[in-house]
Amino acid sequence: MIKTHGYAAQSSTTPLAPFDYEHRSPGPKDVHISVDFCGICHSDIHQARNEWGNSLYPMVPGHEVLGTVKAVGSEVTKFKVGDLAAIGCMVDSCRVCESCKAGEEQYCNNQATVFTYNSRDKQGNLTFGGYGNNIVADESFVLKVPANLDPAATAPLLCAGITTYSPLKHWNAGPGKKVGVVGLGGLGHMALKFSHAFGAHTVQFTTSASKVEDAKKLGADEVILTKEEGWAAKHAGSFDLIIDCVSADHDVNSYLNLLKRDGVLCTVGAPEDPIKIAAFSILGRKTLTGSMIGGIAETQEMLDFCSKHNIVSDIEMASFDNLEEVWDRVVKGDVKYRFVLDLKTLN
Amino acid sequence: MIKTHGYAAQSSTTPLAPFDYEHRSPGPKDVHISVDFCGICHSDIHQARNEWGNSLYPMVPGHEVLGTVKAVGSEVTKFKVGDLAAIGCMVDSCRVCESCKAGEEQYCNNQATVFTYNSRDKQGNLTFGGYGNNIVADESFVLKVPANLDPAATAPLLCAGITTYSPLKHWNAGPGKKVGVVGLGGLGHMALKFSHAFGAHTVQFTTSASKVEDAKKLGADEVILTKEEGWAAKHAGSFDLIIDCVSADHDVNSYLNLLKRDGVLCTVGAPEDPIKIAAFSILGRKTLTGSMIGGIAETQEMLDFCSKHNIVSDIEMASFDNLEEVWDRVVKGDVKYRFVLDLKTLN
Repeated sequence: MIKTHGYAAQSSTTPLAPFDYEHRSPGPKDVHISVDFCGICHSDIHQARNEWGNSLYPMVPGHEVLGTVKAVGSEVTKFKVGDLAAIGCMVDSCRVCESCKAGEEQYCNNQATVFTYNSRDKQGNLTFGGYGNNIVADESFVLKVPANLDPAATAPLLCAGITTYSPLKHWNAGPGKKVGVVGLGGLGHMALKFSHAFGAHTVQFTTSASKVEDAKKLGADEVILTKEEGWAAKHAGSFDLIIDCVSADHDVNSYLNLLKRDGVLCTVGAPEDPIKIAAFSILGRKTLTGSMIGGIAETQEMLDFCSKHNIVSDIEMASFDNLEEVWDRVVKGDVKYRFVLDLKTLN
Repeated sequence: MIKTHGYAAQSSTTPLAPFDYEHRSPGPKDVHISVDFCGICHSDIHQARNEWGNSLYPMVPGHEVLGTVKAVGSEVTKFKVGDLAAIGCMVDSCRVCESCKAGEEQYCNNQATVFTYNSRDKQGNLTFGGYGNNIVADESFVLKVPANLDPAATAPLLCAGITTYSPLKHWNAGPGKKVGVVGLGGLGHMALKFSHAFGAHTVQFTTSASKVEDAKKLGADEVILTKEEGWAAKHAGSFDLIIDCVSADHDVNSYLNLLKRDGVLCTVGAPEDPIKIAAFSILGRKTLTGSMIGGIAETQEMLDFCSKHNIVSDIEMASFDNLEEVWDRVVKGDVKYRFVLDLKTLN
């Protein structure tokens, strides 16, 4: 077994605290990674606090995991000791259903996706994420990390990156298309970068004039202030695709009305309250849909795309010493645009 | 001018009553049709009673109009006197925007679609529908009626038919696909017939055991009783496409959960209350969308398809003498499956 030291929640009401635990010894196809960096995702907080009602304790969060390969099993072909490697939101799936075979393991038809933490592996053991100094996973679910990217800033690509890359790719963001991004946070800032890199005319929606300059720097060709009178009418029927990264309750109808016939609004923010849709908002074969991360092959494609286009996340470094404070700032949306834990601060 | 006799609502609170009015004399491209039959659509009632808040009076309803050509303008090429001809929900549009050029006049980007009634033509005159013995329209918006179909039962194809044909066609209902139909009324029974004719495995959802046999006769390979415990779980993730024909408030999430990854639920029932969607219901790139009638070229294609496959609506004949009673039955859903007014009963 691989002795591991990290931070865990022991219940929904206790703060994260130091915790010693074990990962399995690498099997023939496993990769043992020494974790260097782990991005902090709002879903870490939701799950640690059992806000989705499905939490398993003790919980070691973290699904934007990047590190250095320490050991590989005898049948591992993709990695050797010393390589940079990464793990995202999943570490296994049934691998035989139609979705898994199509490279969409996140939608495993047998609902056998094993998530990186707050999940059980095929042996029934709890999985533990990147808020700890070691992690072990089958190489099929381990990503190769391009050498030219800053490793800390690469970590958030494993969730925030693929979550926005996948729908932009699926619905053909590219030259000649007008793409909107709702919300400028961890997800939104990645959506801007990708949409811009794909060559789409990219528009940021924001309530806040103070974000205009930032949005433009991140790749927006245009910024629409949604507090200005008449903004919605002015842009009605003009968008091909809108990526809605907002998880708070908001009026999705306003954005559906901005779509062209056959346009698509894809939510990635997983709002808790039901989305209320007026029937006329989706007339014209407008699509309201939702997307969740992306498959493993597509995640690797995204990392390779980032390597080519020099795309990483804009980050602030975080330390285990003030994790509670950092989480509070995530809840408030007070971060530009993703916190990344430096595992060197683990004591 | 073409003197016309029909039934009109003079206000939202007065019942339909005899009314004399005029249609324009046919211009060079116009077709003058002597109306033989007119289907009764629930939207006739909504609009006569101003339930959508956009009513113009006097209103002569009727947008499932079928009759005999009485006269044609000098430049008309598609029709000659004595031909059967039909008019659906539209009689004009801007004709120059991207949607009109794409044959989707119902989604005219300039919002210049002229509806068959409760609308104003390009000269600003009120349009009057098929509850009257004459109608005049530009041949571009007049449909050719196949000779082998029963004319009265063909009338409802002009709205109920195209409204269900269009989304089934657009989302590729056909062999190897599993298609669900929610609601078995005027729209639902046409969706069943078309989906079956397209070769899809067709499933009717109903709350009522008494409808099972009818649904099977109309083309359902399978009928799912949605009052039976566990029906939803048993069919989760198995549908490619669901056409939702219900306009009353109902739980759309149950049906979204039946879709496969990338599946589509298309509403054609125009519910008045907002549709409440849980974010997890659309995960897996499931589409919630809405479709409205279909373009003119597609309506002609649908009629030709019906000719080839011997498809018409199942109808009950209605008379102007008891129109109020007939409308009451439409409101109650007490019709199998569409009423058609016989213009010979007009006095």
